[in-house]
Amino acid sequence: MNVGVVGASGYSGELLVKLLLGHPHVRLTTVTSRTNAGKSLKQVIPSLRGVDRGLIFSDSNAESLAASTLDAVFLALPHGAAADFAKVLVPAGKRVIDLSADFRISNLETYERYYGKHHAPELLPQARFVLPELTPTAWKTEAKLVAAPGCYPTSVLVPLVPLLKHGIVSREHIVANSVSGVSGAGRKVEETYLYVERAESVKAYGLVKHRHLAEIEEQLSLHAGTPIVMQFNPHLVPMRRGIATTITVPAVAGATIESLYATWQAVYGSAPFVQILPSGETPDTAHTVGTNRVDLSAVYDPRTRNFVLTSAEDNLFKGASGQAVQIMNLWLGFPETAGLV
Amino acid sequence: MNVGVVGASGYSGELLVKLLLGHPHVRLTTVTSRTNAGKSLKQVIPSLRGVDRGLIFSDSNAESLAASTLDAVFLALPHGAAADFAKVLVPAGKRVIDLSADFRISNLETYERYYGKHHAPELLPQARFVLPELTPTAWKTEAKLVAAPGCYPTSVLVPLVPLLKHGIVSREHIVANSVSGVSGAGRKVEETYLYVERAESVKAYGLVKHRHLAEIEEQLSLHAGTPIVMQFNPHLVPMRRGIATTITVPAVAGATIESLYATWQAVYGSAPFVQILPSGETPDTAHTVGTNRVDLSAVYDPRTRNFVLTSAEDNLFKGASGQAVQIMNLWLGFPETAGLV
Amino acid sequence: MNVGVVGASGYSGELLVKLLLGHPHVRLTTVTSRTNAGKSLKQVIPSLRGVDRGLIFSDSNAESLAASTLDAVFLALPHGAAADFAKVLVPAGKRVIDLSADFRISNLETYERYYGKHHAPELLPQARFVLPELTPTAWKTEAKLVAAPGCYPTSVLVPLVPLLKHGIVSREHIVANSVSGVSGAGRKVEETYLYVERAESVKAYGLVKHRHLAEIEEQLSLHAGTPIVMQFNPHLVPMRRGIATTITVPAVAGATIESLYATWQAVYGSAPFVQILPSGETPDTAHTVGTNRVDLSAVYDPRTRNFVLTSAEDNLFKGASGQAVQIMNLWLGFPETAGLV
Amino acid sequence: MNVGVVGASGYSGELLVKLLLGHPHVRLTTVTSRTNAGKSLKQVIPSLRGVDRGLIFSDSNAESLAASTLDAVFLALPHGAAADFAKVLVPAGKRVIDLSADFRISNLETYERYYGKHHAPELLPQARFVLPELTPTAWKTEAKLVAAPGCYPTSVLVPLVPLLKHGIVSREHIVANSVSGVSGAGRKVEETYLYVERAESVKAYGLVKHRHLAEIEEQLSLHAGTPIVMQFNPHLVPMRRGIATTITVPAVAGATIESLYATWQAVYGSAPFVQILPSGETPDTAHTVGTNRVDLSAVYDPRTRNFVLTSAEDNLFKGASGQAVQIMNLWLGFPETAGLV
Repeated sequence: MNVGVVGASGYSGELLVKLLLGHPHVRLTTVTSRTNAGKSLKQVIPSLRGVDRGLIFSDSNAESLAASTLDAVFLALPHGAAADFAKVLVPAGKRVIDLSADFRISNLETYERYYGKHHAPELLPQARFVLPELTPTAWKTEAKLVAAPGCYPTSVLVPLVPLLKHGIVSREHIVANSVSGVSGAGRKVEETYLYVERAESVKAYGLVKHRHLAEIEEQLSLHAGTPIVMQFNPHLVPMRRGIATTITVPAVAGATIESLYATWQAVYGSAPFVQILPSGETPDTAHTVGTNRVDLSAVYDPRTRNFVLTSAEDNLFKGASGQAVQIMNLWLGFPETAGLV
Repeated sequence: MNVGVVGASGYSGELLVKLLLGHPHVRLTTVTSRTNAGKSLKQVIPSLRGVDRGLIFSDSNAESLAASTLDAVFLALPHGAAADFAKVLVPAGKRVIDLSADFRISNLETYERYYGKHHAPELLPQARFVLPELTPTAWKTEAKLVAAPGCYPTSVLVPLVPLLKHGIVSREHIVANSVSGVSGAGRKVEETYLYVERAESVKAYGLVKHRHLAEIEEQLSLHAGTPIVMQFNPHLVPMRRGIATTITVPAVAGATIESLYATWQAVYGSAPFVQILPSGETPDTAHTVGTNRVDLSAVYDPRTRNFVLTSAEDNLFKGASGQAVQIMNLWLGFPETAGLV
Repeated sequence: MNVGVVGASGYSGELLVKLLLGHPHVRLTTVTSRTNAGKSLKQVIPSLRGVDRGLIFSDSNAESLAASTLDAVFLALPHGAAADFAKVLVPAGKRVIDLSADFRISNLETYERYYGKHHAPELLPQARFVLPELTPTAWKTEAKLVAAPGCYPTSVLVPLVPLLKHGIVSREHIVANSVSGVSGAGRKVEETYLYVERAESVKAYGLVKHRHLAEIEEQLSLHAGTPIVMQFNPHLVPMRRGIATTITVPAVAGATIESLYATWQAVYGSAPFVQILPSGETPDTAHTVGTNRVDLSAVYDPRTRNFVLTSAEDNLFKGASGQAVQIMNLWLGFPETAGLV
Repeated sequence: MNVGVVGASGYSGELLVKLLLGHPHVRLTTVTSRTNAGKSLKQVIPSLRGVDRGLIFSDSNAESLAASTLDAVFLALPHGAAADFAKVLVPAGKRVIDLSADFRISNLETYERYYGKHHAPELLPQARFVLPELTPTAWKTEAKLVAAPGCYPTSVLVPLVPLLKHGIVSREHIVANSVSGVSGAGRKVEETYLYVERAESVKAYGLVKHRHLAEIEEQLSLHAGTPIVMQFNPHLVPMRRGIATTITVPAVAGATIESLYATWQAVYGSAPFVQILPSGETPDTAHTVGTNRVDLSAVYDPRTRNFVLTSAEDNLFKGASGQAVQIMNLWLGFPETAGLV
């Protein structure tokens, strides 16, 4: 199987290339980048020196990719640009795994409220949002195009969805606070992302209107079978990689910390990439960096009758590129963990 | 006026010494430390080289401090030890400003549930918890002993108290998430505080049962005139100094972002150490480091009908030593900002 | 005395403004910035909220500054631009303190080899490079224009000059390795200065040809009375502020660690901003951050017959803005430490 | 092949375990730790959750290891303790790879000057110091016990040895400055290694007398065929992993940057773990973290007639555990890169 990565020079593109170079069942034959066309892979991603197999960036061109022998194509592009490629590649029969937001939201109106005009709305029916641990497996045959989930949504949905679905937690008064390493913003060359600005600095941002909220709420609502709105408060913290999410949510009457853990255990007991920690031990982003895991934990507060759920992940790995490879593994029939441990 | 610092070798003791050495109206004559007795100040706090005025640490001895010419004494000690000193110094007529938790909680039972046996409960009636911007001014004459607030409580109480008191926000479903720099844990030599463990790592800790919760809830309840319980989720993040707090709380029917800002403005409009930022601009801990400020902001979410309040401060400055000096200024009749800008 | 800062929005401009706002003997009346004209000081430098005295950035215009009532003007501008302002302000009788490289190098040819065409070579005879602890005091009356030293040069010259001058160390085989915090590069919005690129990363840069080398070697040569060439190896390390320099240099026959320390003591014994540490105790940048100090130490290696000299400073403080204020203090007849401790 | 790790709970032990768990040709069956005996591997090293294969720490006992079915044993222990294990395991026929300093120095007197009494001097003749890219291959059959090189020595020897051996650089006036991430100090719970102490702080340490100097000089002398002494200046910088070394050394008359690169190319052209960068491009530790590589570069300074050599590596990987696995691969006849890319 030959695979390619379009837009391989961002942080998630970089990790994706690294994972695919080491994957036992696929061959990375194509990396493209508008700005780095003609440069060698190791020149652009120096950490790959010695394992880059001599790959050279080609220009990003949808038609030539459509005409290539690639079996699957990963899109590591900004939203909008991803749809532009998808609308050429999908009709050409390529399996497309998109890391952008373009096909994460099935409701066109919601998408356009957060992201502006959609470049390929006609593909929405063929697209599936796939969070492998939660999305029913029918996607493997139905999808022509898969949207890999965002980094924040993964950290919120994995702990929350089973509990909402099984009536352990309230559908109201859900508050998720997330802190993310700076790579979550991508390789944007802006003053606010300079070392001196971000080191020793924490701030909330995107309150009320962060784009990932649309994706989180649509998924929560689909799984809960009823519209869910929630508070999502993201923060930037001085580290390179990692997301820690803390969710406060009222317990449903009768729910206990035991029933919460039993629910998680039922859903994730055999999931290779979800680790459930004992109540009282909190996940640490550092323990997940470089892995495809989400670590989970929860406590119950008898005074407030809330559960406090905590999760940690590597935003570039399980939050982006590792999860995209996991999706590919499942879609192409490889072992789920191939190339990921 | 002569002042002394007992326990001057922790992080907040260090900043306190620095502030008092530069204070225009007091003279720091005494610094004590059990472990550093006999060493010079600059040897223990090398950043003071050249401005240390030749001070030498003496051993920490309550009786000799009681017999000294000191007018005011700051206690920068662990809880328990602080009460041991206070019970000698207060009867001797020294004005005592305590940075520990020993006199922050007026309810003895609550104190002992979180901290164990109180070493000087007989002093509680003479002690006052003073958050200068919120505590009614009667404390200046009533107090024999002042408890300076904790770092997390300051970051929660400043944004929240006026809104609770004036009926802008709900008394239920209050969720505060805080992230703190590592100096918040003090100079504890434990594996979890090693550079390699904390750099590039975020985790929640002390969920449900953090000690500062007792102090926060007692103050909220006193100001609101009714018992308040809330969720408080603290986190450690990889920076040295700073606390950012994000509070999600339902709006009371009829409350608007304008009425919220008007309330803050009424309470803090002339407070030199509270800065109110426009809605949509979030406080950044980096902007407060090295200052005695708390920066505040808020947004309203019409979808959830919550307010999201954000605050930032320097945990060692406004969260500890700077606030202690501010308290001293007010107590001794100096300008509130003396030695602090 | 009224003073102004031209180009007040870079990192050193920011610290300069902060120091001048708190200075007891001057009044900062003017801050200019081409990009921030019309904005308030606290909007551009949020850490000054509450102490900004309502200052507003005006546009940077040499003629209007020349016509103003300013007594002294600080130039915190890129090289070239600084000379453009100086050639208007100096003839107008303003005392100019320049933080750029434009007047640090008296040899025009050397300057132009490193920096390109000089914009005001006619001013060179009236300009003086002033490192207060080393430059003979005649500058106070001779200078019309003072060049404040660069950050790296300060960290190299303070330890090395007295030893070269007094024949303690060799004039050959001098090797200086410096590591600098990222603010040394200024507020340049380039990919290499992004948080994710610099955190957890160290690299040498500018080997053989760093611009500060010209300034270092000219000063060493002037003080030694003979041309000196040396190796200067700068590195970027993941911190915001601070420079640590380690100089390896052969001992002259007969020189001992005692004679080295005696020489330093003779030159710096009463200097308020140079601290000499005992041999074996090495300076730590963290101890100097926020101070105008250079800390020094040295060891002798009997195996190699080298001395190893170490220095630490805050690159924005003693390496830039603090030193500029120290120069102003001496030039205008204030106490040397005014506004700096 | 079954392998074990003694002392698996330090930072290098942790990485070693991770590498051996993923190695295609060996089976990690035993992990020991005095302090963690009885605990699960994933409890002690949470980043291994999900891939820990249920391993449990056993107590560290030399006799039971000697009696086991292990083919090879890695010692990740402090010096002294390593020799205690080696003197039981080597006679029992186990292949021992030691990551401590105990067998890195063949000269007993030198060893004891730096480290104190040797616990197993009788093993020195059977031990070999192996830096795979430089040590002649005879060690594969001669050695009963292999000492893996230290982190600093690897970063100094790889660039320097070929140049000394082939007469490109002087044998005198060699100056190596290294900066290391904090994990280089191991998991020592001491105040100086606390997050707050090390973040935003750089300092030199161990000047003149760092223990790695003994190892560096012995190897340089062996390869050069003549005694070499040099200056070695190590520094701690605020990052977790990585060493960058900058070596200043006079060029031998007639040597050019081309002859230097030709020498490196001849020695390392087919080495999978040494990457030679073009002159002018400097290695960055961040590009080597998580790899077994040393990246090299050099420039010539015609003014000083020095070469400046730069290297970067991951101190825990090529500087410790990765190199130990590379040694195992060569010793046991596996491909050199097995389990390392």
